[in-house]
Amino acid sequence: MARIAIIGLGLIGGSLGLALKRANIANLELAGYDADRRTGGRARKLGAIDREARSAADAAESAALTVIAVPISHLRTVLEEIAPALPEGAVVTDTASTKRDVIVWADELLPAPVSFVGGHPIAGKEQGGIDAADAALFEGQAWAVIPSVRASERAISAVENLVALVGARAVIVDAAEHDSYLAAVSHLPLLLSTALFSLASRSSAWPELASLAGRGFRDITRLASTSPELSHDICLTNRENVLHWLDRFAEELRRFRGLVEDGARQEELFKALATVQSTRDAFLHQLPVRPQAGSDIEMLSAGERITAFLMGEFAVRRTKEIQELIEKGERPSAEGPRRGER
Amino acid sequence: MARIAIIGLGLIGGSLGLALKRANIANLELAGYDADRRTGGRARKLGAIDREARSAADAAESAALTVIAVPISHLRTVLEEIAPALPEGAVVTDTASTKRDVIVWADELLPAPVSFVGGHPIAGKEQGGIDAADAALFEGQAWAVIPSVRASERAISAVENLVALVGARAVIVDAAEHDSYLAAVSHLPLLLSTALFSLASRSSAWPELASLAGRGFRDITRLASTSPELSHDICLTNRENVLHWLDRFAEELRRFRGLVEDGARQEELFKALATVQSTRDAFLHQLPVRPQAGSDIEMLSAGERITAFLMGEFAVRRTKEIQELIEKGERPSAEGPRRGER
Repeated sequence: MARIAIIGLGLIGGSLGLALKRANIANLELAGYDADRRTGGRARKLGAIDREARSAADAAESAALTVIAVPISHLRTVLEEIAPALPEGAVVTDTASTKRDVIVWADELLPAPVSFVGGHPIAGKEQGGIDAADAALFEGQAWAVIPSVRASERAISAVENLVALVGARAVIVDAAEHDSYLAAVSHLPLLLSTALFSLASRSSAWPELASLAGRGFRDITRLASTSPELSHDICLTNRENVLHWLDRFAEELRRFRGLVEDGARQEELFKALATVQSTRDAFLHQLPVRPQAGSDIEMLSAGERITAFLMGEFAVRRTKEIQELIEKGERPSAEGPRRGER
Repeated sequence: MARIAIIGLGLIGGSLGLALKRANIANLELAGYDADRRTGGRARKLGAIDREARSAADAAESAALTVIAVPISHLRTVLEEIAPALPEGAVVTDTASTKRDVIVWADELLPAPVSFVGGHPIAGKEQGGIDAADAALFEGQAWAVIPSVRASERAISAVENLVALVGARAVIVDAAEHDSYLAAVSHLPLLLSTALFSLASRSSAWPELASLAGRGFRDITRLASTSPELSHDICLTNRENVLHWLDRFAEELRRFRGLVEDGARQEELFKALATVQSTRDAFLHQLPVRPQAGSDIEMLSAGERITAFLMGEFAVRRTKEIQELIEKGERPSAEGPRRGER
């Protein structure tokens, strides 16, 4: 029996559990823990975990892979708690929205034979919590993978395989890149959405504005419903990048304001609007490129690969070969295949 | 045979036609016209109109209700073209995104016995054009109704009934209010969405940003895919309001920037984020209030009411009464009911 631990069973942890259960990996135990006992019980009832652990350390004990899906403000404490319990060669990942601090903490707190590979599923929902958990939450979405400097190749591919297994697309970046890019495509949008909803709802005309607000207003303010804890954590842990992109946005908005105001620049305004529209259309039609694994490992599915990681790759390749031989009506050789090198 | 004319058969005109056909009004002819003949043919094929007219004037001729669903930049010309063809007592409405200019043009160009009641369905889609037309486009959405000063009560309720018939919610406002409110909840969001997509896509890191952009970025930049013609028309015809709300937004964004930057104001930042979240949650759960018709007319459905408008109310009430009597097995009286007063 191999074990994956999920610590924190909210929308992300719960959805990850459901997605892993749906992938139907043989001989896998999902141990889960949430500081809120009701959440833990609910996760087990929903089938997001197999076993409710007594503590974060209890969940991580003997887990080959531990996923920490708690708010970043609790992440350091969880790393401290699980550090003594982690087995040799364990891989630890997380799901926090910013990465600079997490990578530093992991480096400081985790023992050397443990590999930390940060993770950030770019997925969410208007509603949070275990009851909003959804096995399909990550399907087709990006999942940033941020290896710490000490992380082994084996640990990185374990996390990549986990990501592929739940239908997401791994994008490997370093922590500084991650925090800067996410400030642009996630944290800035969050603040724009929040400021827009704040402006409209604080207006004396709010009842009239609300009655005339359509789907466009609803969509653009969706991120304003992000939990204030998460939004605040993002502002706190990614302050410089957020301020940088806020300033660049204010500048871009001033550029558009100038074009709207100046009657003599209407052709320029039209061209700017047309460029944005066509660029976005191209962006929508661009198919995400899946990361290519090495040719040696390509024969295995994501499910086989995560089992390979959990059980030792040899056993899986051997099992696969035996099955294929049985299907062909042949007898397996005693030697088995040579173990692949990555 | 009563006639409704739809001039302009893009997403809005086409969807309106489909929604009216779906409402299954007896003895109603939908005449349609689009300057692009291919669009007109396609609309007839899709069942959005019954008859393709040869011109805007041809469509409006003998139509009790004419809906102009063309870009605002063509609206004045259409009003000029149809003015001589409109029958006495005709009601004209439109679907443009701004109203100040439209109301002035209608006042100037339409003959006195014609009532103009402006309209603006707050509904749209990422894709435009007749092929994106959808009978359900307006369901549950707001539809601003902007009566001109000369519009009769009868004309206003005809437009309200049209709106109810396609499943939308009529919100009566004057042109100045409309343009100011829409600047806040629609035109400002359009420019924020556009500026955000512009900023991200002009960045040298755009390939990386695109690969990490999730559903949140897609949703918040959806309005950036608005056709540049429509966006530009909005900027041109609602410039002062757009500039006003752009400035108020810039101020609100600066307020949030200050809270993010100042380490001593984190509690204030958290409170601001929490207030926005809870206000938006309340907004999402607030059920739209349907406008109440007078008690005398409440007995009729929206379909019956639009027929009442088109055919003369008496005939409908009489038909309804006869049907009820037939169901009860009684014979109708020779007099019929007294015609209701509004």
